[in-house]
Amino acid sequence: MGGTSIKIGVVNEKNEIIARTVLETRLDIAPEELIANMGKVTRKLLENSNIPLDQCVGVGIGSPGTIDDKEGVVIYSNNYAWENVPLRAELKKYLPLPIYINNDANCAMLGEAAAGAAAGRKNVVFLTLGTGVGGGFLIDGKLFNGGLLGGTEFGHTVVQVGGVRCTCGREGCLESYASATGLIRMAREQMDKHPDSLLWKLCDGDKSKVNAELAFKASDEKDEAGMLAVQEYMKYLAAGVANAINMFRPEVVVLGGGISNRGEKLAAELNGMVKGECFGHTFVKPAEVVIASLKNDAGIIGAAELC
Amino acid sequence: MGGTSIKIGVVNEKNEIIARTVLETRLDIAPEELIANMGKVTRKLLENSNIPLDQCVGVGIGSPGTIDDKEGVVIYSNNYAWENVPLRAELKKYLPLPIYINNDANCAMLGEAAAGAAAGRKNVVFLTLGTGVGGGFLIDGKLFNGGLLGGTEFGHTVVQVGGVRCTCGREGCLESYASATGLIRMAREQMDKHPDSLLWKLCDGDKSKVNAELAFKASDEKDEAGMLAVQEYMKYLAAGVANAINMFRPEVVVLGGGISNRGEKLAAELNGMVKGECFGHTFVKPAEVVIASLKNDAGIIGAAELC
Repeated sequence: MGGTSIKIGVVNEKNEIIARTVLETRLDIAPEELIANMGKVTRKLLENSNIPLDQCVGVGIGSPGTIDDKEGVVIYSNNYAWENVPLRAELKKYLPLPIYINNDANCAMLGEAAAGAAAGRKNVVFLTLGTGVGGGFLIDGKLFNGGLLGGTEFGHTVVQVGGVRCTCGREGCLESYASATGLIRMAREQMDKHPDSLLWKLCDGDKSKVNAELAFKASDEKDEAGMLAVQEYMKYLAAGVANAINMFRPEVVVLGGGISNRGEKLAAELNGMVKGECFGHTFVKPAEVVIASLKNDAGIIGAAELC
Repeated sequence: MGGTSIKIGVVNEKNEIIARTVLETRLDIAPEELIANMGKVTRKLLENSNIPLDQCVGVGIGSPGTIDDKEGVVIYSNNYAWENVPLRAELKKYLPLPIYINNDANCAMLGEAAAGAAAGRKNVVFLTLGTGVGGGFLIDGKLFNGGLLGGTEFGHTVVQVGGVRCTCGREGCLESYASATGLIRMAREQMDKHPDSLLWKLCDGDKSKVNAELAFKASDEKDEAGMLAVQEYMKYLAAGVANAINMFRPEVVVLGGGISNRGEKLAAELNGMVKGECFGHTFVKPAEVVIASLKNDAGIIGAAELC
């Protein structure tokens, strides 16, 4: 379930997506109506693919926000402006199958661990670096979701006490620094300090046009504003990655989201930066940072993994 | 296993310490010798208490440093200057019982969860605030130790990127701010800025004498230097506690170590500060901060819990 569209797939036992569709949606319709649409479009997809319902073992859903995975309820989703929506109970009216719901970042992690960049690994940290920062954690082959309700909110751990105000209300959350949004803010700050920088040219003199890709491009071309912004960004991202390693001791840290489009350059630089930051690194092997490989399919395959 | 002494206890099934002794030790003796002493003193304690070895279900040990709990090896302990010491295999020569080893902070957490401030809780975060900052985590009633070797090092997650250099090599670790050592540094900084402050009087004009207790005392008496130091300290401690809650979603956060001697005042203030910092706090109940109740016995009872 994404911001403006819901991606629906039929996944077989080999973790292959054998049929797929997209439900474009407005966010201002009632939850019941949206869920009904999800159910109907999924039934149609199965019919069109000649897959009878009784051949399906279940329905897995990756939802943004705070999920009660035991009860199948979306407790709160900022995106959809949902509060205590009984997603499982509602969807069951249209899809009478076992229904499993979890956080979207957790699903993307499960997908990468099942069939992507972390295939075969049992201890995985997944970080989505997009508008925000999401985290998913696999420990001993099992999804780690913390204790009580609420889920792991790694993006909302503070890495800069007294720092930038986050949308969650805290100051200095990792999300405010290691997201694409964070990089864009850093780039704009450097543009203000460097009025002759290449970054201004790359975005046609319009600061609102700067994005992560342009910031990386300027940095690669040795533009001072671009380099300073990217250096600052990498410092925070490396701190966040090392924090996750020191807490969770994974074999591998998988990076997804828009920022991960930078690819191997990003992974190589982070591996260099993070190594010395891992506690006991002279005695225990630090985790390797890799780039997610399934892109948008990770969430679909991972949601199916919930079943 | 503490800095200069090893506390040894016989724990019954009701989590009561029915016999105890202390092995004072030098740190410069060979590991084999120290472990032999541990074994002999424990045998003697059992004999003196008329407890035959075959009535013991096992030996639990809380060791500082990085532990391989599966193999029973102390991979690295800074305190003891141990590297790859086969603690279980060596001790077994003297105590032919199942032997379980884990990190000391984990053992203290297990003790508080078994018989202390978190008795009966299944989701617990324990933080020791002493010379350093240690963390122990109980999730769904089970000790959470992360994925691969190395253990959870919550004290070595960065809360201030580019901040104070930690003994681990990173800059800005929680340990550098939320430990007693951190509070003492903050108090000294304020003493330099406030040469007429009460703190100077409380430590007889000798800055090296300032400690956490004096800093809290000065703050309580409205001394500006004391208040500013404690305010700064509490800001970092609250950030660390909220970070742990947002990652682990415990029912309760238990505070131990020297700083926790401040007692209910500390817990009450933190509960006020942390509440709004917990992600989704309007929808999910934030954890309660409480003070550890077992003091030094937590480690002994918790080590027995390993068995």
